Amino acid sequence: MVLFRRSLGDILRSRRAELGLTLREVSGAARVSLGYISEIERGQKEASSELLASLCDALEMPLSDVLREVADAVALEEAAAVLAAAPTPMITPRRAGEVVASAA
Amino acid sequence: MVLFRRSLGDILRSRRAELGLTLREVSGAARVSLGYISEIERGQKEASSELLASLCDALEMPLSDVLREVADAVALEEAAAVLAAAPTPMITPRRAGEVVASAA
Repeated sequence: MVLFRRSLGDILRSRRAELGLTLREVSGAARVSLGYISEIERGQKEASSELLASLCDALEMPLSDVLREVADAVALEEAAAVLAAAPTPMITPRRAGEVVASAA
Repeated sequence: MVLFRRSLGDILRSRRAELGLTLREVSGAARVSLGYISEIERGQKEASSELLASLCDALEMPLSDVLREVADAVALEEAAAVLAAAPTPMITPRRAGEVVASAA
């Protein structure tokens, strides 16, 4: 199952890394506990809409951009899930000693 | 403040309307209580990631598409907020009887 919070966490963490900010700095700017932000980044906790808005402010990234990046990441996961569910092409195992083509 | 759950609710409701489904039908398909879905559609409750995935299945719409539509709606709201915060252009009120231009 493709989960929103997992992709969201990845995007928020990579944005924080891009800005070179620590969890502590984002925690202070967004007025959210450090542990909670860490859990959100790891996709373990859901972020309320208010918290998400605060995090976007602290990360200087509009919510619409965050959601577009999450949508792109989710689309890749969905495509991977479709591929994983598709039947693998039949490959007929060759018996030992079987001669497929002979120059003889 | 632009809230994710409000735009999400709008998108989910309009998708349900597009499919001509009742709240009861979506509730049955997604195995979520009717009242909860109704609150999510009105932007009053946050949807967990698991619930959001179930709703997307029931509405036959990939999560990535839902998120893209939410991102577009949020972008419009963000633009409107910027416009609303911008200073209004000065319009000097005209006094009664004031003649701006005269052919005399």
